Amino acid sequence: MIVDKREEISLKERQLYLAKALEFAKETRSVIKSVITSGFTITSKPDKSLVTTADIEAEKVFREKVAEAFPDFGVIGEELGISNPEADFQWIIDPIDGSSELANGMPLYGTIIGLHYKGYPLIGVIDHPAFNSCCYAAYGLGTFCDDKRIFLNDFETEIFDGTERVATATRSNFMRYGDEGRIFDTLVKVHPNIRIYFCCYIHTCAITGAVDATVEWNVRIWDIAATQLLIEEAGGKYQSVRQTEQPGVGSVYCAVFGKPKLVSKIVELLNL
Amino acid sequence: MIVDKREEISLKERQLYLAKALEFAKETRSVIKSVITSGFTITSKPDKSLVTTADIEAEKVFREKVAEAFPDFGVIGEELGISNPEADFQWIIDPIDGSSELANGMPLYGTIIGLHYKGYPLIGVIDHPAFNSCCYAAYGLGTFCDDKRIFLNDFETEIFDGTERVATATRSNFMRYGDEGRIFDTLVKVHPNIRIYFCCYIHTCAITGAVDATVEWNVRIWDIAATQLLIEEAGGKYQSVRQTEQPGVGSVYCAVFGKPKLVSKIVELLNL
Repeated sequence: MIVDKREEISLKERQLYLAKALEFAKETRSVIKSVITSGFTITSKPDKSLVTTADIEAEKVFREKVAEAFPDFGVIGEELGISNPEADFQWIIDPIDGSSELANGMPLYGTIIGLHYKGYPLIGVIDHPAFNSCCYAAYGLGTFCDDKRIFLNDFETEIFDGTERVATATRSNFMRYGDEGRIFDTLVKVHPNIRIYFCCYIHTCAITGAVDATVEWNVRIWDIAATQLLIEEAGGKYQSVRQTEQPGVGSVYCAVFGKPKLVSKIVELLNL
Repeated sequence: MIVDKREEISLKERQLYLAKALEFAKETRSVIKSVITSGFTITSKPDKSLVTTADIEAEKVFREKVAEAFPDFGVIGEELGISNPEADFQWIIDPIDGSSELANGMPLYGTIIGLHYKGYPLIGVIDHPAFNSCCYAAYGLGTFCDDKRIFLNDFETEIFDGTERVATATRSNFMRYGDEGRIFDTLVKVHPNIRIYFCCYIHTCAITGAVDATVEWNVRIWDIAATQLLIEEAGGKYQSVRQTEQPGVGSVYCAVFGKPKLVSKIVELLNL
């Protein structure tokens, strides 16, 4: 019998970790808002993506808070690297997912916080500072958005007519490590009622049911550190469709998630 | 010598109309927020698009305010039809552009208000109630977003590398009156850094420069009543690429707008 390793962590502990994760998210939200208000600077990273001082300041405060509360836990952050990689517990953060959107004055960016235990997601939070909106989940305790419990309804059949709402990454994402534009093209031909936001808002929409499914392509661990748990605790399906190692980059992930029947259909369509 | 008919309207009058348009937008914002807070109902229209009670209530209050202030002017509204179609001045409103997004709990929807004089746009407003954000323009008086004057910078060359930010409609929009999916496919192949929001936020982003250009497809007069003026007064280029009459529907518009050099390149690419 296979037992989920997360069962080693008591409900009470999970509640504590969730409470802490929400405390951290409150801190990062506050830092991000204050840096935006006082004026932030934008720089280009080696991979040509943008980073702002809001990203850096938010990750700094997160790491300080983690170091205070959980000195033995690991941290993986998009901007400031890895500490204590051998620990069973790993806090993972993308302080601002969608920095280029923020840099262009757009409000859909979000902070992603995950706590993984022995590689399994235990806590997941996606916070949207510009909307004062937050989705969170703990293993076995359900998913909540703005403190309302989320239950994703599945479709009744596996037949779709093209009106189903599907979100995905830009076509550029599909071409990041080799030209997979045809995968994007196939997806949008079969599911033309498409949304593209270029940040974790495509995750949030699948979690709340605002879209029926999301196809995420060529992203890093901090981009999806919270999503699987948020989807599964809401009754949705999360399917990792690929994990590759990109030289000089690291692990890169592709996944489909949302309402189960549609997720299955899309995974079948992508035929990877 | 061709004189723009809008010159018949004095600057002072334009200022007055702008002030009134902003008053109307304040009213519609307040009605929309209050209907959303108190709980709205959603119904399907004959064309299968959604309408909410927030749409209807906002258009009602707009028409009341217009009737009070401008009893001789015409009104064209998405939800409640046409009045006084022969008048030189026509107020045009889409009370909620993006009703299906609102119905799904998404915040990008907006209210579009235009005042046209003898067919030319004189005043344009796009208001986003969920963000408390508003873009407005009057002919000859510039474009402002959140009370900050907007000046769109053009590109320096006509050579693009695929990182330029382009927003567009869903692929479904391109298939609404015949299968023009290939136009969408061509656009996203050449400009893969694409955003799709399914509401007037793709216009707002072109107006503020958050995206470099937007391609809007198969929309009605109320969808684009404000955009041309908002783009042109910000120093951008608005190019109508097609206007057709669809049986049982009416006039349907396609347009490209944003930073001039990119708009020209996209129009050339679409080759209509």
